[in-house]
Amino acid sequence: MAKIAALSGFPEWLPAERLVEQHVIDVFREVAELHGFSGIETRAVEPLDQLLRKGEIDKEVYVLRRLHAEEEDADAAREDRSRTLGLHFDLTVPLARYVLEHQNDLVFPLRRFQIQKVWRGERPQDGRFREFYQADLDVIGQDTLPGHIEAEVATVMAEILDRLPIPEFTIHANTRRLSEGFFRSLGLEDQSAVLRSLDKLPKIGPDAVRELLLGEAGATPEQAQACLDFASIRTRDASFAQQVRDLGGSGEMVEQGIAELTAVLERVEAAVPGVIMADLSIARGLDYYTGTVFETFVTGHESLGSVCSGGRYDALASDNRHTYPGVGLSIGLSRLVSRLLTAGLATASRPVPTCVLVSVADEQHRHLSDAAARALRGRGISCEVAPTAAKFGKQIRYADRRGIPFLWFPGVDGAADQVKDIRSGDQADADVEIWEPPVEDRTVQIRATAPEGPADPA
Amino acid sequence: MAKIAALSGFPEWLPAERLVEQHVIDVFREVAELHGFSGIETRAVEPLDQLLRKGEIDKEVYVLRRLHAEEEDADAAREDRSRTLGLHFDLTVPLARYVLEHQNDLVFPLRRFQIQKVWRGERPQDGRFREFYQADLDVIGQDTLPGHIEAEVATVMAEILDRLPIPEFTIHANTRRLSEGFFRSLGLEDQSAVLRSLDKLPKIGPDAVRELLLGEAGATPEQAQACLDFASIRTRDASFAQQVRDLGGSGEMVEQGIAELTAVLERVEAAVPGVIMADLSIARGLDYYTGTVFETFVTGHESLGSVCSGGRYDALASDNRHTYPGVGLSIGLSRLVSRLLTAGLATASRPVPTCVLVSVADEQHRHLSDAAARALRGRGISCEVAPTAAKFGKQIRYADRRGIPFLWFPGVDGAADQVKDIRSGDQADADVEIWEPPVEDRTVQIRATAPEGPADPA
Repeated sequence: MAKIAALSGFPEWLPAERLVEQHVIDVFREVAELHGFSGIETRAVEPLDQLLRKGEIDKEVYVLRRLHAEEEDADAAREDRSRTLGLHFDLTVPLARYVLEHQNDLVFPLRRFQIQKVWRGERPQDGRFREFYQADLDVIGQDTLPGHIEAEVATVMAEILDRLPIPEFTIHANTRRLSEGFFRSLGLEDQSAVLRSLDKLPKIGPDAVRELLLGEAGATPEQAQACLDFASIRTRDASFAQQVRDLGGSGEMVEQGIAELTAVLERVEAAVPGVIMADLSIARGLDYYTGTVFETFVTGHESLGSVCSGGRYDALASDNRHTYPGVGLSIGLSRLVSRLLTAGLATASRPVPTCVLVSVADEQHRHLSDAAARALRGRGISCEVAPTAAKFGKQIRYADRRGIPFLWFPGVDGAADQVKDIRSGDQADADVEIWEPPVEDRTVQIRATAPEGPADPA
Repeated sequence: MAKIAALSGFPEWLPAERLVEQHVIDVFREVAELHGFSGIETRAVEPLDQLLRKGEIDKEVYVLRRLHAEEEDADAAREDRSRTLGLHFDLTVPLARYVLEHQNDLVFPLRRFQIQKVWRGERPQDGRFREFYQADLDVIGQDTLPGHIEAEVATVMAEILDRLPIPEFTIHANTRRLSEGFFRSLGLEDQSAVLRSLDKLPKIGPDAVRELLLGEAGATPEQAQACLDFASIRTRDASFAQQVRDLGGSGEMVEQGIAELTAVLERVEAAVPGVIMADLSIARGLDYYTGTVFETFVTGHESLGSVCSGGRYDALASDNRHTYPGVGLSIGLSRLVSRLLTAGLATASRPVPTCVLVSVADEQHRHLSDAAARALRGRGISCEVAPTAAKFGKQIRYADRRGIPFLWFPGVDGAADQVKDIRSGDQADADVEIWEPPVEDRTVQIRATAPEGPADPA
């Protein structure tokens, strides 16, 4: 047997850890469905030419080859990228293809969520995964999509994040219209150059960005300062608007942007108070997003980067009949779960789903244990029956080692059943048709826990 | 935009179909967890040498290559199969590796379920998928595993199948000990040759099998007839035992096999009456299984083959310290779901999770609709708010097209809210804090439905 070693970049969880990941997935799905989003899954592969369509060469695609494919076939396929399959590196490219392929069978606006693994062949030493879950939420319109959907998708995501066992988080919102309108009202011609420069603020700092603004963006020192001041605006309420106007922002585009961003703040605040913020430094995805944009940071875990990002785009896909605009947000789920686990931020109340281990007095009476377990399961209580009729002390230790809180003793020869709380040692008569575990023990609880070390060691 | 075409062998569902698949996955998980099984997921890739370890060359493995890997690297990796990664073609090879890799962090017997996609580069024209869900249930012991686990795993699987929206099914069980003991008590030396011959019964029929028995297995005409008679035994209760003895089966091994199989029948019958059957023709996986073996057929859909198979194996994995025996059963979930959908055997009560569409009188009053939706969601009722403030007739048609059963009208200027049942047209005053949809409308129901055509057209 070859030596077994973990593969770097391909995370795998132990059963108790997987309970935390499953919980995050369950919460995402539950909230999305409460808001009328349909869950879909797309195949894991797309033709290589589709994957590379937007010039995404920085995403390291995994290309597939059938082991027994003829060598000539493999070489031919390598040349013809429409015949070569690659693993998807996100859920947006597949969604675009799915929407076009199934457009006649879908009702628009399509409200869809999608939680699947994606693959990127990046160097794992960057702390990046090569296989990870992404969880996406998008509303896709056919030809048109009302602006208020931007606030709606942010609201759903805020509710999801709010119900996850994570520390305090803030959704930072901005809108392209406000930024571009502001730069225009300052008299700056090359608004993309300004955005590109400001996008580098977190990495290179204001002084270096000022140089870029003066150089590449052709700004005067006053204009550069106004842009930097603009990008430093962060408000929890609509007061960002007056600050923008005070910096010289004016005109129809600026006022439209203000109205859009104010609506987003108000709707998210009404649904989940205290999590949304206007942050006019947010610029992401220059060529892709066209309306409101979002990034989300977890307090004390800023080194994770944005855990949930997205925004409005005007063309997810198009063919000669229709264009499909959308609003989408995406959680890097594995990265978030990995941090929850490694920093001890969330734990399962027990490592197994089992609430009760039903003991076995001897193999001749195993059917009594089976019957007791069946009755408890009939009332939704997770049970397993002891694998062997070992001495009770050994069965207690087995339950303890597995983290099962209760041990059930079926009564033999007409005696009453008994149940023991492994943690307290309390033992009492009990009836399989009536007994209830404490509500917090009935199912596994995933709890946010105090971090074990400094919040953000990076 | 390149032409969009479905990829043969890579099934994808529309939102309403995905609800059926998700339901099957949910039922599997719920029952498994009720029995104390832990859900795990393994990475999608394994080193190629591990995937091919058991000589599984008939499984067409998809091999991965990073698009930007240096050509020399790629060639080197092609030579060195421990450095090449392939997509897993089942969940058993990954489980074996997971158990060895994490053995110090797992408690045995390990009770695990696993529902993931697997990939096989087979010719899709066989009606086989290249990407599909498999759903596995295994109990893995460290060095030892009691025999009664065989009945237990079959019981859990019977409960899962019983709760799925599928037609009548039968789990066919046999045990290797009974077959081998019987052949031995007939005086047949080469028991594997006999098993191999009988394994071909469904394909080539009794006359051809008789030839094989007389030829390859070295049987006399009387022995061959006894073997064919043995393989024709099918009983719902323990009466198979006397039939085996009447055919000349005797000795310790036969009696052990009878006791094993009887225990399986009795325990499954006690949990889910009427689904288990002794079927002494079942021989599957000659070199792998060592105890009870199972195959499951859906009445009227025998052309699907066995939808759920497995059994006892004595060495899932081993290293120089431990051997890991197990009992496992696996459902070919995508294949089953595909049949449910194409034959119209199961349908979702509506195509979207949404129970209520909250209408919008005009954009100035959208906040009232948001508030009503929030209140309904707070009580677990899935809602969406109308995307535009179109005329009510248009909003009704929108709800109807999406299959949403109820339309909510928030009262404007102090008027009472109203709710309309789209199907009946009934409309009445309602209070967001009190109103309840009929219980069957609260969430999507997945229902077994009458088939549309002949049951098994193949």
